[in-house]
Formats: sequence, C-alpha cells, structure tokens
Amino acid sequence: MLRNGLKPATPAGFLVEEGCVIVSPQNSRVKLARQLQQRRDSREAEGLFVAEGARLVTDLIQAGMHAAFIILSDTPTAQDWRATCDIPVDCLVVSEQTMRGLSGEVTPPGILAVFHTPAPPDLAATRAASTLLVLDGLRDPGNLGACLRVAAGADCRHVLLAPGCVDLYNPKVLRGAMGAHARLLMWQCSWSDIRAVCAGRDVWVADAFGRRDYDMVDWRQPNALVIGGEAAGVSLEARSMATGQLRIPLANRVESLNAAVACGVILFEAARQRRRA
Amino acid sequence: MLRNGLKPATPAGFLVEEGCVIVSPQNSRVKLARQLQQRRDSREAEGLFVAEGARLVTDLIQAGMHAAFIILSDTPTAQDWRATCDIPVDCLVVSEQTMRGLSGEVTPPGILAVFHTPAPPDLAATRAASTLLVLDGLRDPGNLGACLRVAAGADCRHVLLAPGCVDLYNPKVLRGAMGAHARLLMWQCSWSDIRAVCAGRDVWVADAFGRRDYDMVDWRQPNALVIGGEAAGVSLEARSMATGQLRIPLANRVESLNAAVACGVILFEAARQRRRA
Repeated sequence: MLRNGLKPATPAGFLVEEGCVIVSPQNSRVKLARQLQQRRDSREAEGLFVAEGARLVTDLIQAGMHAAFIILSDTPTAQDWRATCDIPVDCLVVSEQTMRGLSGEVTPPGILAVFHTPAPPDLAATRAASTLLVLDGLRDPGNLGACLRVAAGADCRHVLLAPGCVDLYNPKVLRGAMGAHARLLMWQCSWSDIRAVCAGRDVWVADAFGRRDYDMVDWRQPNALVIGGEAAGVSLEARSMATGQLRIPLANRVESLNAAVACGVILFEAARQRRRA
Repeated sequence: MLRNGLKPATPAGFLVEEGCVIVSPQNSRVKLARQLQQRRDSREAEGLFVAEGARLVTDLIQAGMHAAFIILSDTPTAQDWRATCDIPVDCLVVSEQTMRGLSGEVTPPGILAVFHTPAPPDLAATRAASTLLVLDGLRDPGNLGACLRVAAGADCRHVLLAPGCVDLYNPKVLRGAMGAHARLLMWQCSWSDIRAVCAGRDVWVADAFGRRDYDMVDWRQPNALVIGGEAAGVSLEARSMATGQLRIPLANRVESLNAAVACGVILFEAARQRRRA
C-alpha cells in the first residue's frame, strides 16, 4: 500500500510512480499532455490523445482503449477514483494548480488520461458495412462529438471524416462523443479514399433542398450518408460523388436541423428499417 | 430622411427617436433591456423578452412577433440592417460600449430587440393537437432551444413546459431555438395544467429503460411525448401520468442520446407516420 492509500498496480509492462509524489509542471509527461491537449500536430506526431473526467476515462478504458498514462490532481476525488478503478496504468499526481494549466475544462475534473490513438480500421470491414457515415466539414467540435454519439447509438459503426472536419481527437470532440471513440471504427481520410471506400454503394447527401425524403431510401442496402457542417453545408466533392440528395421534410419554414439531430433522424430511420426487415 | 440615412417609420402607434441620437446607458429602456436580458422575474413582470442578432430578430418579426423597441449599436452593420429592414418599430441607438454591457453574446451582434411575450395559447387548440410535446426539467437553455427548433421542424406545434424547465424566454433558449418561438404554441405550466390538457390521450415518456420501441406507437392518434432533462431524466410527476415508457433502441452500450436528438428521432418518426398514412 502506498502512502496515500493507493494500491500499486501489478501487471507487467506498466509502471507506477512509487509513493505518488506530486510531479513538477516541468515533468516531461505533464508537458506532453499539455501539448496533446492543445495541438493537433502533436497528437498526430505522437499518436496520442487526451481525455478528461472520471466517466469518460473509465468508459474508454473499459471499452478497450489503451491508456499510456494518467495524470491525477492531488484531491480526494481524483485519488478515490484511482483507488476504485484500480486501473493498471502508470499514474502521475500533480497539484491542482498544475492541473488547471493542463485541463481543457473550466472546472478541471482532476482526472486526465493520455491514450494511444487507435490504428485506422480495416478497410475490408468498412467496405462490408451496411451504412457508412461520412462527416463533411464539421468544424465545431461539439457538433462532431454529438454526431459520433448518435452514430454509435444507431449502430452505424463506420465513420469517415472528410478533410475540413475538426480533429477527431480534439478534447472537445471526445467530450461530446461520450465514449463513442471506443465504439466506432473511424478514419480521417482524403476524398479519394472516401471515393474508393464508397465505390459500388449509393451515396446520399443530406440537404435542405434534397428531392427524396430520407425515409424513401432502402437503408438495408449498402449506403453511405453524407452529413455536412451547419455553416457551409455539404462540399462540392461530396455532391460530385452523390447518388442523390435527401431531405428531412421540415415544417413551419424551419430551414435546417443541426448536424447531430439530422444524423439522428436519418440513422435511426436506417436502424428502424433494419430492425423491421 | 434622418441624419444617418434612416427612414423614419410611419405607421401610427410607433415612435421613432428623431435623429437617432445615441442614448445614455442610463436611458430607462436601455436599463429595462438589461434587466430583461438577465432576469426571469423581470421578463415575467414586464411581459417582455429580449432577442439578439439580425437573423433572429428579423425572423421573429416577420413571423408575427410584436417588437416593443429595438436597440442598435452605432455601427454601420447595425444601421445597414435597420435601413434594409425598414421595420416600423421604435429604435434606439447606443454606443458599442453600452451594447457590450447589454448583450448576452461574447461578440455583440449590435442588434437587440425587446418583444412582447405572446399570450398563452388557446387550450382548445392544444387539446385538439395530434402530438403534444411536454418538456420536463430541461435546465440547459441550449438543450431546450434545440428541442424547440426540432419540434417546429417536425410540425409538433404544441409544447408544454413543465415546472423545472429553464425559462422559455431566456436569451440562450431564444438563440438555440432559431425562431421557433414564433412558430410554436408554448405554455409554461403546472403539472395539474399538464394533466388536464393530456386527459384522454396516451402519454409516452422517453426513457432508456422503456419497454416499447418508439416506432411501435401509432403517432397518428392523439398522444403526448414527455422528454426529460439529461441529468435528472423524467420526473415522478410525468411518470405517474404516463401510459408507458418508450425507448429508442441504442446499440454499442450507448446509454442515452441528448434531449434534442431524442426529440428529433421520435417526433420525426411521428411525422413520418402521419405523412405515410
């Protein structure tokens, strides 16, 4: 038992900071976590990303994501979480002040984990999926995260992120997705990759001016659904490869729905059709 | 033509500040607008509310909402808007600094309108509606606004707000609803009012542990749908009057959807059934 009541983790291959000494803000892993929090290029160069909060971190680990190390505040809440979870991952303790400098939240939850970015999914599996979701130009991280949460719930597990989307591993995307990162097979890719993966299937673009109602598509056939960002809509690249444009009929002169709601309405209609088939 | 190029509005019953002099932050209507922005009790006592931004203000006015007066920044953008819209409403001009003190936005759009709160809708019409939406304990203004936007789009025009919801006329609700306030018939009411209005119709509560799939309800019959807040879920009052609990089947161990997405999935299924009937 360590000084603060934590059990040392035992599995081979993991290290535990003996005694849970509070490490300096200049500690190399604290500095790395700060960079990963702030910079997409650091996340891509290191193949690592950051997630915060007891619920999200626990959820990602339990769903099989591989944590490199965890940084905890020197607070009872954070230490209790560590004691309860008993996760065999290397763990650093920092002062609350250091955590405030690290955290992306106004009120830091005191639990921050650095994860290994998963490898891109197997393309053969993606090609066999019934519905692919293509997210196009979603620049707002909360919107992108909400779309991923919806896709996971609707069992649309294969998601392609077109150029122009915010980074999938942006901490705000992780927060909005609420664990979907561990449940989906996602790929940040070029339009030529998207064309290759979508070859041989219908590609439907969601659009306010679409000519076909979204529920008049047979979603049991291999399809791809393209959802665009709220500001710019769907890109020319997506339109050029589309089989057609779908609309969600909107009443009362409402012009559009937000991306996550549109995603939910269409993907749960697809799930409904498959369930009732 | 006034000094700054604005046309004076002509219809009887409206006044225009001659010459569009910049008024002081101590002007009584500027002070009133600040109170309405910040305080629910002021909004309720005055029967007035505030909305900001060219698009939202124009939309509400065009959809028939009655503006009491408008406050504009002394900026070309705001003055251009006034010139383009030619709205016959009393109009005050304030300095940019005064507008910063008034605005609820980080970057003030420079256009702020004070509207008369509409009278509660006619209950007979509400009783005749096919689907009523009951929002229960939605405390987050962005979430409530997003639900209203969805309800307007899905043509579910009758919305009852149960006790515990954030104020319908909170400026952040108005922003999220994107004009839905002018398209819906909404009523902030007590549970006994809700019971009275829902008498004789099926009341379905959306719940992760519901026993009936949301698409196995006949939404062409008179119904009410209760959507709860994300944190606390649906209240005991709602459960006690429910015919049954509905679930949206969720895959991949996703625990819930956000309120606006759940609202969208169910209300657009209701709209789909009515369209295909």
